[in-house]
Amino acid sequence: MIKMWDEIWEQPVVLTRCLEKNLNSIQKIITAIQTQNIQSICIAARGTSDHAAVYGKYIFELTLGIPVSLAASSVYTIYRKNLKLKDTLVIGISQSGKAADVLEVIKGANQQGAITVAITNAPDSPLATEAKYHLYCEAGIEQSVAATKTFTTQLYLLAQMAAEWSGDKQMKEELLAIPREISHTFEIASQIEAKVERYRFTDECFVLARGINYAISLEAALKIQETTYIRAKAFATSDFQHGPIAMIDGDIPVLIFGPEGPSLKDVSAMAGRLKNANVELIIVSNNQDMLSMGNTAFPIPETKNDMVSPFYNVVIAQMFACRLAITKGLDPDNPRGLNKVTITK
Amino acid sequence: MIKMWDEIWEQPVVLTRCLEKNLNSIQKIITAIQTQNIQSICIAARGTSDHAAVYGKYIFELTLGIPVSLAASSVYTIYRKNLKLKDTLVIGISQSGKAADVLEVIKGANQQGAITVAITNAPDSPLATEAKYHLYCEAGIEQSVAATKTFTTQLYLLAQMAAEWSGDKQMKEELLAIPREISHTFEIASQIEAKVERYRFTDECFVLARGINYAISLEAALKIQETTYIRAKAFATSDFQHGPIAMIDGDIPVLIFGPEGPSLKDVSAMAGRLKNANVELIIVSNNQDMLSMGNTAFPIPETKNDMVSPFYNVVIAQMFACRLAITKGLDPDNPRGLNKVTITK
Repeated sequence: MIKMWDEIWEQPVVLTRCLEKNLNSIQKIITAIQTQNIQSICIAARGTSDHAAVYGKYIFELTLGIPVSLAASSVYTIYRKNLKLKDTLVIGISQSGKAADVLEVIKGANQQGAITVAITNAPDSPLATEAKYHLYCEAGIEQSVAATKTFTTQLYLLAQMAAEWSGDKQMKEELLAIPREISHTFEIASQIEAKVERYRFTDECFVLARGINYAISLEAALKIQETTYIRAKAFATSDFQHGPIAMIDGDIPVLIFGPEGPSLKDVSAMAGRLKNANVELIIVSNNQDMLSMGNTAFPIPETKNDMVSPFYNVVIAQMFACRLAITKGLDPDNPRGLNKVTITK
Repeated sequence: MIKMWDEIWEQPVVLTRCLEKNLNSIQKIITAIQTQNIQSICIAARGTSDHAAVYGKYIFELTLGIPVSLAASSVYTIYRKNLKLKDTLVIGISQSGKAADVLEVIKGANQQGAITVAITNAPDSPLATEAKYHLYCEAGIEQSVAATKTFTTQLYLLAQMAAEWSGDKQMKEELLAIPREISHTFEIASQIEAKVERYRFTDECFVLARGINYAISLEAALKIQETTYIRAKAFATSDFQHGPIAMIDGDIPVLIFGPEGPSLKDVSAMAGRLKNANVELIIVSNNQDMLSMGNTAFPIPETKNDMVSPFYNVVIAQMFACRLAITKGLDPDNPRGLNKVTITK
């Protein structure tokens, strides 16, 4: 039994529960925040949770226009410096709630009188206890070392915070539909299982996206790294052309997330450029022209909303990494050299 | 004649000139800033300049305690959203001054009444003209596509801004010594030329550091990517153990920056772990124990100051990338698929 596979499939149920159980807490936090004059947001996290933080940066900036910084936690841990965080909302994200460096950021922020929120899947953890407010992913125990359902619940809580804070009713409705719509990504599970065969002997790949789905390219690369040991490297398409594109090679596949929406034009141009250079493309999209450029193509449900497409894209990436690991004869639940809880100081 | 090599060697002279010509401007900017109630700093940049921005994040946070965010420029360009930047200092960095997305961030910030500063090597460029203040790298024309002297002048201007702003006299003195001390890195130029032979057939590597030198690991990876086409991947050691370490392989060398100072303990522990796993290590350090762990070791001048060591580390990385490209029969001045000026929208 592959725990990672099962946990991927739990996500529609888990996301629904996550919202039900947290809606009150989110509303309370937002009410408290709105009495303050929040000028900026700072998010601290590591690993998969850090990719949720990147999603958070985009979603808060896009819905609220408030600039978001991602904490360089070494500033707190190895340099022992405390930042001035007046009028700042500080969010710490850690599945286990045990990330020591994230905890340091939250402690420092509390000392500065900032509003602090922890997002964890462990309500009794140090991080959940230290922060002024806690949002509990309610993902159930995640047994696979490769995080899946804890990641999507982190995204979902961040998106719900932004929706509640901005009071955007349409956004709330679109978010509400996500758990149901995610189920449709499972329709191509058997296609994914068949198509990973082609990548059995791949040992490197690039992963590209633009805008908010850059967060998903990072997370897809990490899932692939952890479970298949393929040396995956993620780039925003905009960064890729500032140098890294010199590395392309017909034998290194490029996984591209190119959903309908504001980033399509840019991502499509990059896909065309790579296709002309005979690079093998794996395309995840809901746009037919994009999909037709792929040597391998994975369709996702319809949406032009860049706050929604990351959920579909990441589930495809999770399934792809998991099935490819199995095809390579590896155990995605127990990657070599990794533990479920990583306490970086 | 290799222009990149020549331009690397110009850096001591160029940095000295850069400070002389900019000191007045920096003091004027800081005087203006100090009348404002700056609560946060935002830096926008791409490619090599973005790695200067990462250095800037650390240096401002460490000397001033003011949180720094790195602009996700797609927020401005593809999503057309303007952030609230009251009481924010916004810095745009672009060698050519033509980066269209950085320009959008500066335009948006000007509309919001933020203080804007451009750092470019092109005083008549759109970015230099748009920003309220301009700092001119004075690096002279950079002919190689691979940026070297424009990068170190960007770092130097950011560090000088932080020193002037904080009024830290000791920091100013230490910065003043950098151009002279950088010259000592050239003492091992012939060693580097000899030792790159070993990596003639390398096609992948990892690059690791912690803290402020993370900026240098990113830049070293980019220089290696651009000039040698080796698929170099940079990670902070703290992130590396959250998953990517599963990818290690004895045949993939790891370049590690581990200078004396606050990050040494962490970086040294990672080097030891990799050495135990029989991974080939290329160590850049001024600590003997670190150097002794390397299959290849490049010493840098003495310093325990993490604001200074990045200058030495990056010059070693530039020389390494340049000589390795030549050994591979490549032209580091004209990487395939790249132009000197990249205008990402």
